[in-house]
Amino acid sequence: MPATVPNAKNRQILLMNRPKGEPSESDFKLVEAPVPAPSDGEVLVQALYLSLDPYMRGRMSDRASYAKPVELGEVMTGGVVGRVIASQNAKFHEGDIVEGILGWQTYAISEGKGLRKIDPTLAPISTAIGVLGMPGLTAYFALLDLGKPKAGETVVVSAASGAVGGIVGQIAKLKGCRTVGTVGSQAKADYCKTELGFDACVNYRASKNLAADLSGACPDGVDVYFDNVGGSVTDNVFPLLNFRARIIICGQISQYNLEKPELGPRLLWHLVRARARVEGFLVLDYAERYKEGLGELARWVKEGEIKYREDITSGIENAPRKLIGLLKGENFGKALIKVAD
Amino acid sequence: MPATVPNAKNRQILLMNRPKGEPSESDFKLVEAPVPAPSDGEVLVQALYLSLDPYMRGRMSDRASYAKPVELGEVMTGGVVGRVIASQNAKFHEGDIVEGILGWQTYAISEGKGLRKIDPTLAPISTAIGVLGMPGLTAYFALLDLGKPKAGETVVVSAASGAVGGIVGQIAKLKGCRTVGTVGSQAKADYCKTELGFDACVNYRASKNLAADLSGACPDGVDVYFDNVGGSVTDNVFPLLNFRARIIICGQISQYNLEKPELGPRLLWHLVRARARVEGFLVLDYAERYKEGLGELARWVKEGEIKYREDITSGIENAPRKLIGLLKGENFGKALIKVAD
Repeated sequence: MPATVPNAKNRQILLMNRPKGEPSESDFKLVEAPVPAPSDGEVLVQALYLSLDPYMRGRMSDRASYAKPVELGEVMTGGVVGRVIASQNAKFHEGDIVEGILGWQTYAISEGKGLRKIDPTLAPISTAIGVLGMPGLTAYFALLDLGKPKAGETVVVSAASGAVGGIVGQIAKLKGCRTVGTVGSQAKADYCKTELGFDACVNYRASKNLAADLSGACPDGVDVYFDNVGGSVTDNVFPLLNFRARIIICGQISQYNLEKPELGPRLLWHLVRARARVEGFLVLDYAERYKEGLGELARWVKEGEIKYREDITSGIENAPRKLIGLLKGENFGKALIKVAD
Repeated sequence: MPATVPNAKNRQILLMNRPKGEPSESDFKLVEAPVPAPSDGEVLVQALYLSLDPYMRGRMSDRASYAKPVELGEVMTGGVVGRVIASQNAKFHEGDIVEGILGWQTYAISEGKGLRKIDPTLAPISTAIGVLGMPGLTAYFALLDLGKPKAGETVVVSAASGAVGGIVGQIAKLKGCRTVGTVGSQAKADYCKTELGFDACVNYRASKNLAADLSGACPDGVDVYFDNVGGSVTDNVFPLLNFRARIIICGQISQYNLEKPELGPRLLWHLVRARARVEGFLVLDYAERYKEGLGELARWVKEGEIKYREDITSGIENAPRKLIGLLKGENFGKALIKVAD
């Protein structure tokens, strides 16, 4: 069967090494391959946006996790928004905008499983890997299902200006909570307060006394802690936990690049003191309820109740560099790579 | 009003210092006082058994906890089984056997609040501060309400031969679980296996590779972890947690005598990997359901389904020494001080 896009090449980024500590660009390799053609039941998708997310660091490692690592020499994994340019699958048609885990490549074949059709009239299509995709759903289900925030309670979220954190803070605000963020720069702190409506935001990098700054930002203690970061931020939130506090562990980005595990203060006693609960969250467990979550999120976005910020870089060749930056907190908002118009 | 027991003295043990690290006997002082007489609404109780429990270390410290510390110069706190020897309270009569937080003293006045009448025909009265008291209720509610063990699951309990742990293991066994303990001596390990019916028991002090020994004892991973100990035992259980595992933090005795907080490996990522839940437990939160729990426990004890072991020392003057030993794991079973016949 002839290639569907005869004049184009498929530009792919392969994982070449399992990094120890911080990844480097040399752990990846950009290669060109022919654009594949869809067989019976398959569709060919041209990538428009790639999503960059903290979980990707885990896929580069062969440590035990909730998902298998990317094999060396394979295309790096990741969420993609793209356009169907050829279809041998009755459920998809040329021109459809779709979202799925298609990896870091400009063209991808899919059997349609896990591929979601996007309505481009609803919101900009890039939101399908942001506020109206996994990050939004993560914020929605983790905060509401595990955090169960009640009006008047204090909700703290780490990485508050990030793709998940920003939405967590705004949903908490919608639920009538005092909303406190932690971020890594003054610009992010200002953004959380002025744009996203956080009541307070602590720049942990600038803080000279994180315990005091967090305690000052949470005069009534902490009822819900939504943790994307771990490490010293989390160490300093635990002593503030109120009776029956709920802690959601969504990510621990401060730990992902460590060459060897970091030691920290033991935190479990705080759970007895406060009879608090800590729970780990993974959005994939909520697949059956995505429709519910997306419906709510879309309504909030449409009504201007939830804002989002994108950090867009053009060119697939920049994906490794931007992911490396994201793992150090250099992005400001949802990190995306724009691959084609 | 004249003293009710004219020829007796009230022997009391007072807390004199807030110990740094391991307590010493000099942190306590034995004094003699007149035996008090009950006023209107009060009862006078002669202590028969004092309960020694790990939580007492927390009461000696002024660190923030779920309860206020014992003030310096005050009678040391603790659960007591005793006999009413004079009553000005219509609810209690001379000769009643009662249980309550009456402290380390041979005679105590109570207004009756929190004082529970014990049926001495049901079981030996010492069980009112053991299997049919706080330790038993702790095991019952924490395991069943938070742990929710299902038949075929693996339940790990630390301090497995202790007042709480031994009951946890036996209830887990009644629920059809594989039951694994950790203890600090070979004699305790043997006891858990041969007397209490544990499937496996790891002596963490003798283990040369705790991770491997625990993993070997839990070939199907860990579904419920009931933690009384914390520290390295807990560090080595977390990597074994199964999907949707439940972890109950009941105590962290390995940490109570530390002069400064110990650092340990960060454990929260395991909760994401396994979507596991950790919850802190305090039996006092279940006061409204004590009757239910005691009914079940009494039935199991009567039917021989639950066994218990007591570690009894005579003489109130030995309470400090035995508490110091308990904090180092020197007791074998529920630690009691026998004060009078």
